Amino acid sequence: MTGWLAVAGLGPGDEAMVTPEVRAALAEATDVIGYFPYVARVAPRPGLTLHGSDNRVEIDRADHALRLASEGAKVVIVSSGDPGVFAMASALFEALEKHPDLHDLDIRILPGITAMLAAAAHTGAPLGHDFCAINLSDNLKPWELVEHRLRLAAQADFAMGFYNPRSASRPHQFARALEILREECGPDRLITFARAVSTPDERIQTVTLGQATPEMADMRTVVLVGNSATRRVGRFVYTPRSA
Amino acid sequence: MTGWLAVAGLGPGDEAMVTPEVRAALAEATDVIGYFPYVARVAPRPGLTLHGSDNRVEIDRADHALRLASEGAKVVIVSSGDPGVFAMASALFEALEKHPDLHDLDIRILPGITAMLAAAAHTGAPLGHDFCAINLSDNLKPWELVEHRLRLAAQADFAMGFYNPRSASRPHQFARALEILREECGPDRLITFARAVSTPDERIQTVTLGQATPEMADMRTVVLVGNSATRRVGRFVYTPRSA
Repeated sequence: MTGWLAVAGLGPGDEAMVTPEVRAALAEATDVIGYFPYVARVAPRPGLTLHGSDNRVEIDRADHALRLASEGAKVVIVSSGDPGVFAMASALFEALEKHPDLHDLDIRILPGITAMLAAAAHTGAPLGHDFCAINLSDNLKPWELVEHRLRLAAQADFAMGFYNPRSASRPHQFARALEILREECGPDRLITFARAVSTPDERIQTVTLGQATPEMADMRTVVLVGNSATRRVGRFVYTPRSA
Repeated sequence: MTGWLAVAGLGPGDEAMVTPEVRAALAEATDVIGYFPYVARVAPRPGLTLHGSDNRVEIDRADHALRLASEGAKVVIVSSGDPGVFAMASALFEALEKHPDLHDLDIRILPGITAMLAAAAHTGAPLGHDFCAINLSDNLKPWELVEHRLRLAAQADFAMGFYNPRSASRPHQFARALEILREECGPDRLITFARAVSTPDERIQTVTLGQATPEMADMRTVVLVGNSATRRVGRFVYTPRSA
């Protein structure tokens, strides 16, 4: 039996956004590994072992997946959104670096709909021109680097998408991010808070930077900031193609 | 009969990357509108009219779709990739701005797998940390703005994805973009040329900026540039989560 390992994106929550490619991998898998709530989205069946684990154990999870696949299992690591966007793909390659003997393993990354782009779709087209994606968490990088990137992104007039804007353990940083954005972009720039996109709890709220408060975001929120040309049309927000 | 309009992303080419949400919209549609090669991906059936059109007529296409939907048709505008990333969603909202009478029309944007993220998945995880997406075409914006964004993105140490890197009508600009990147990032930075991702013609090539030549890209190529920490592991390229 030849094992393989796929890192698959389940999209932001709606099952109708899971690609057939990901469904096919799950249908063939012997083992599914991931953070509990993502593993809970996979239906149990005979011959499939579900391995749910806690958050922040990405490298352990990747090591476990590599070991199972090297022993012949057909393993899917499930990620929300797209595994390549602030998710499990990078952690897998970090783990793979330590195992040169496994470099020839059959490994595939299966893309999914990332939260930022689902949020953009449900808002209109706020990322309709050049944009950037920034993880606001400083768990793995210094906060100074986040601030540096925010300022340069604003000066480049990128539209922006932020992941992990705010958590209970670091409530002040998103307030600081909003201050920087107001300094660089002024109070009239549009900002969208998209919570639990594509789930029954979805809530999308667009305000100006002058009106935005830190409490509008939590860890289930993706934040989108327009560029200087982003505007409203009816109930939508969009960025023109010429901006 | 109540009309509606969906702008749907067909993904980069592989039918296994088309979401069930997009399939369902196509199954209900009376009219499918889009650039010829994208419309050609939709199977004909009784009751469905296919409207293929040429490239660079995005606003005409959007006007046509809005008119049909306002008359009661169920219309899908098909886009490759994700409609919100350098595709038809922005053009639709530009057209909608001129028609305040249609602002209450049932309009939905259905996300898809955008080429940059499919290319990243097939390369490893080169966009595994903060990144930006830049359209290198100056059809709709001045080239100086492209250069400005490239420099600031490099100074922010973003990984980068470029759409429309090179065309026959503007062969020198991508050479200039590579020069700027070499100035800002040095010759050792990794750059990936991903052509026709997820199609039978797929070709993915990773070199250093010092080795990169303009001819490595054409209009079917998405270009990915790593940040300062991006590296190879086995046959893959990835950017660590801490970078």
